[in-house]
Amino acid sequence: MNKIDRNLTMLCDFYELTMANGYFNSEIRDRTVYFDVFYRDNPDNGGYAIAAGLEQIVDYIQNLHFDAEDIAFLRTKRYFSEEFLKMLSTFRFTGDIWAIPEGTVVFPGEPLMTVRAPVMEAQFIETYILMMINHQSLIATKASRITRAAKGRAVSEFGSRRAQGADAAILGARAAYIGGCNSTACTVADEVYGVPAGGTMAHSWVQMFDCEYDAFRTYCEIYPNNATLLIDTYNVLESGLPNAIRAFKEVLLPRGITRCAVRLDSGDVTYLTKKIRSRLDAEGLTDCKIVVSNSLDEYIIRELIRQGAEIDAFGVGERLITAKSDPVFGGVYKLCAIEREDGTIQPKIKISENVGKITTPHFKKIYRLRGRETGKAEADLICVYDETVDDSKPIELFDPDHTWKRKILDNFTATELQRPIFKQGELVYQCPTLEEIRQHCKEEIEGMWDEVRRFTNPHNYYVDLSEKLWQIKHDMIAEYRKKK
Amino acid sequence: MNKIDRNLTMLCDFYELTMANGYFNSEIRDRTVYFDVFYRDNPDNGGYAIAAGLEQIVDYIQNLHFDAEDIAFLRTKRYFSEEFLKMLSTFRFTGDIWAIPEGTVVFPGEPLMTVRAPVMEAQFIETYILMMINHQSLIATKASRITRAAKGRAVSEFGSRRAQGADAAILGARAAYIGGCNSTACTVADEVYGVPAGGTMAHSWVQMFDCEYDAFRTYCEIYPNNATLLIDTYNVLESGLPNAIRAFKEVLLPRGITRCAVRLDSGDVTYLTKKIRSRLDAEGLTDCKIVVSNSLDEYIIRELIRQGAEIDAFGVGERLITAKSDPVFGGVYKLCAIEREDGTIQPKIKISENVGKITTPHFKKIYRLRGRETGKAEADLICVYDETVDDSKPIELFDPDHTWKRKILDNFTATELQRPIFKQGELVYQCPTLEEIRQHCKEEIEGMWDEVRRFTNPHNYYVDLSEKLWQIKHDMIAEYRKKK
Repeated sequence: MNKIDRNLTMLCDFYELTMANGYFNSEIRDRTVYFDVFYRDNPDNGGYAIAAGLEQIVDYIQNLHFDAEDIAFLRTKRYFSEEFLKMLSTFRFTGDIWAIPEGTVVFPGEPLMTVRAPVMEAQFIETYILMMINHQSLIATKASRITRAAKGRAVSEFGSRRAQGADAAILGARAAYIGGCNSTACTVADEVYGVPAGGTMAHSWVQMFDCEYDAFRTYCEIYPNNATLLIDTYNVLESGLPNAIRAFKEVLLPRGITRCAVRLDSGDVTYLTKKIRSRLDAEGLTDCKIVVSNSLDEYIIRELIRQGAEIDAFGVGERLITAKSDPVFGGVYKLCAIEREDGTIQPKIKISENVGKITTPHFKKIYRLRGRETGKAEADLICVYDETVDDSKPIELFDPDHTWKRKILDNFTATELQRPIFKQGELVYQCPTLEEIRQHCKEEIEGMWDEVRRFTNPHNYYVDLSEKLWQIKHDMIAEYRKKK
Repeated sequence: MNKIDRNLTMLCDFYELTMANGYFNSEIRDRTVYFDVFYRDNPDNGGYAIAAGLEQIVDYIQNLHFDAEDIAFLRTKRYFSEEFLKMLSTFRFTGDIWAIPEGTVVFPGEPLMTVRAPVMEAQFIETYILMMINHQSLIATKASRITRAAKGRAVSEFGSRRAQGADAAILGARAAYIGGCNSTACTVADEVYGVPAGGTMAHSWVQMFDCEYDAFRTYCEIYPNNATLLIDTYNVLESGLPNAIRAFKEVLLPRGITRCAVRLDSGDVTYLTKKIRSRLDAEGLTDCKIVVSNSLDEYIIRELIRQGAEIDAFGVGERLITAKSDPVFGGVYKLCAIEREDGTIQPKIKISENVGKITTPHFKKIYRLRGRETGKAEADLICVYDETVDDSKPIELFDPDHTWKRKILDNFTATELQRPIFKQGELVYQCPTLEEIRQHCKEEIEGMWDEVRRFTNPHNYYVDLSEKLWQIKHDMIAEYRKKK
C-alpha cells in the first residue's frame, strides 16, 4: 500500500452484505459463480473507451479484510448471524480474476473483467470493482479524447479543485495521464503515482506585488528555467504581455535563457493568442510558448486549433477531471455463469424487455483481431471459454443482431484481451508501470482506424460473438420465451 | 482522524508550492492576506445551494504537515530552496478561518469561507479547501433538489458504483444525507459518518436460485423484518409480483408481519407501479411499500409523481452521486485583502473584462435578513468587516448592479452567516453532528420562500452589498479604469 491507500473493504453496498449473509445461511453458500464487468455505451457518443483502474483493484483485493471494528459495527445493524460475522473475520478473496490490462482500447459489451469465486466473495467485491473501473476508465477515455483534439500539443491536467473528492483528484490525474495527458497540477499524484506535476502562479501572485512587472520579475529571478507568467490578471495586451516581455528580456535573456512561456486563462483565446504570438516573435522571443487554460474540453480545443489560435500547450481543468459532458461510465457487474457441483459451467442470462440490456451468458474470452499488414484492429470476437481462434485461417464474422451481415476476415492476428490477474486468491499478474500503461494506451489508439477514433458519428467497431456463443445465447432467450 | 482519513497535505496544486517558495524567498513572505471562497452560479440553474464540506476541512487543517517523505520528494523536483524545504518540516496553519456552517442555504457571490493567514499558508490550502467545498456542496445541493422533488417520500442514495472514486462515494453519501436523503447503500459511510446504510438484494440473488419464488422465500425467511424483494429480474407483472405476493403470504403473514416492500429497477414505472399497487391492495398487502430505482433525478421524480405513479420510496444512483446534469460546483478562492505593516487592511480586487467575474474586495461579513413575522429569508447583505447591521431599524437595500432598484426592509432579524472556525491556528468551533447539520439544512430550506426553491426560473435571491462596501468596490474599479 502506498501512503494514501486505505483498507476500503467496507466500501461496499449494504446489499452485498445482506446477500452474503443470506448465501451463508442457505444451501448455495459454496456455489462458484462467474461475474462479468462490462459497459453498454461509450462516453460522449465516442467510438471507444480506455480501460483503467486495475492496479487499484489489485491492491483492494490483496488488502481485503474486515477488522474487529468493522465486525462490531456490522453487529449493531442486527441483520447478520453471529456465525456469519465470525466468518467475516477470516474473509479473504480466494477466487480467480481475469481482466483487460489498463490502457487498452475497449468497446461496449466486452467483459473488461471476469470474476470466478464462491458466490459470497464474487458478490461482495462488486461495488469497489465497478467504482474503480468506472471512474478511471471515464477519465482516461476523456483524456484520450482531449489529448487527441490537441494534436500533439501538451495537455496538463489542472482539475483537482473541481474534482469530486480527493480520489477523484488523485486517481483522476493518474487516469488522465494514462489517457494521454502530459502532466498534472496535483502534487500528490506525482509523489504517489509518478504523474509529472507542474505549475507556476495564480492571479493572486500577481496581485500580491505592488505592480505586475514586479510580480513577473520576481518570479523570473526565482525560477529562471521555469518561467511561465500568467498575463491576464489586469489586461492581457496592454499590461500582461508587455510586462512579461520586459521581465523575460531583463531577467532571462541576460542569462542566456530563451525558454519561457506566458499563460492565458480568460478572454478571446484565438484573437489574443494570435496577437501574443506576433508580438513575442517581433520581440525575438520565438522560444516563448503560449499556454492556454479556461474551461477547455476536446470540442473547444478542436475549435481553437481550427481557428488558427497560436497555442503550444493546454491546461484542462473541470471538464476533464469530472468528464463534465458525460460524467458517468456505466459499467455493470452481471452474473454470467454458475458452476454445478460436478464442475460443469451453467451459463446464466439476464433477460430484459429492453433488448440492449440482455446480457451475454457464460464464461467467455475475448479476442482482438488485427490486420496482419495494417496492424489495425478490425473486430473483437467474444467466445466461450473453451474455444480457440485459429488465426492461420480465414474467419467468418457476423453481426450478432443482424446475422445475415457477414464478413470473412483473412490475414489477421488474434490476441486474447483478458489476462489472468488472480488465481485462487493469489496475484499472478505483474502490474505494469504507469509509463508502460500510458505507452500501451498510445499504441492502442494508434492501432485503431480513424473511423473508430473520430468524435462525430464514429464507426461502430465490431464486437461479435462466436457461432457457439451466439447459439447458446439464442437458445437461452428462446427457452425463456417458451416458459413465459 | 477516523479510520479512512489520510494526511492529504500533498493534495495541493503544484503552483501553491512554487508560489510559497517564491514568497519565502521574497520580501513579502510575512504578509498577512485574506482569501474568500465563493461561487458564481447555482447548480442546475437553481435558486440556491447548500454549503457542505467544512468538517473535512477542519480535519485537514488540523492534520496539515509535511513528512520527511514529502520533503524528500519535493527536493527531487529541483524547484525549491533548502531553506524552504527545511521550513516545510515545521509548516502548520497559524491563521484564522471563518465559514458558513454546513447545511446552510447559500447564494452566488457570498464568501462561504474566509481565510486570514500569512500568504504562504493562505495560498497553500487553496486546492484542498476548494475541492472539499465544491464536491460536498455540489452533492448536498443536488440531494436537496431530489428530495424536495420526492415530496416527503424517502430517498436512498445508491450511487457508490458510479461515483468518481472512493471519496466521491463516501463523502458523497455524507453530503447527500445533509441535503435530505434518508439513507445510503454505502456501508462505510454508515460506519464512519453515521449515514444510515441499507439494502437488500441484486438481480444476481434472484438468478442464483432455481426459481424466483425460491429466491424470494429464502430472503423472507432470513430477513422477515426487512423483506424488500426485487421483482423485475424476469417479468414484473407475470412473475416477479405474483412470486413476491406468494412469499409475503407464506412466510411473513403467518408470523404477523405486514411490513414489506417490492422494488422496481426498470420498465415503465408509472404504469407498473399503478398495477402493482392495485394488486397488492387487492391481496390485502396494503402495508407493502413500492420502491423505485433506475436512473432517477429530480426531474424524473417530479414527473413520475405528477403522473400518479404509486411510489413510496426512491433509490437514486448515478445522477445524484455525480450530480450528472451539472457535475461541477465552481467555487473559487480569491485574494480580497492584504494587511499592511501597520495592521490596516488594504482591499484587493480582481478586475475582469467579464463584469460577472469582478471580485468583491475587502475583508467582509455576511448578514442574512429574515422577516420577523414570516421567518423567511428576504436578502443577504455583505458588509465590510467593521460594519454592524442594526436590525431594530429599517434598512435600505439596493441592487449592486442597478443601484436605482431600492427596497426598504422593516421588521427583520439580521444574523451573521460566517462563524469563527480557527483563531491563530487553533480550532474554536465545535463541528455539529451530522444529524444536527441535516436538521439545520431542513430548517434552512423551510426558511426560504417558494420562489427561491422552485426548479424552473427561480427568483434571484438578493445578495446585496452595504453602501460602504459598494463604494469601496466602485472606487477601486474607477481607480483601475483611470490607470489604464
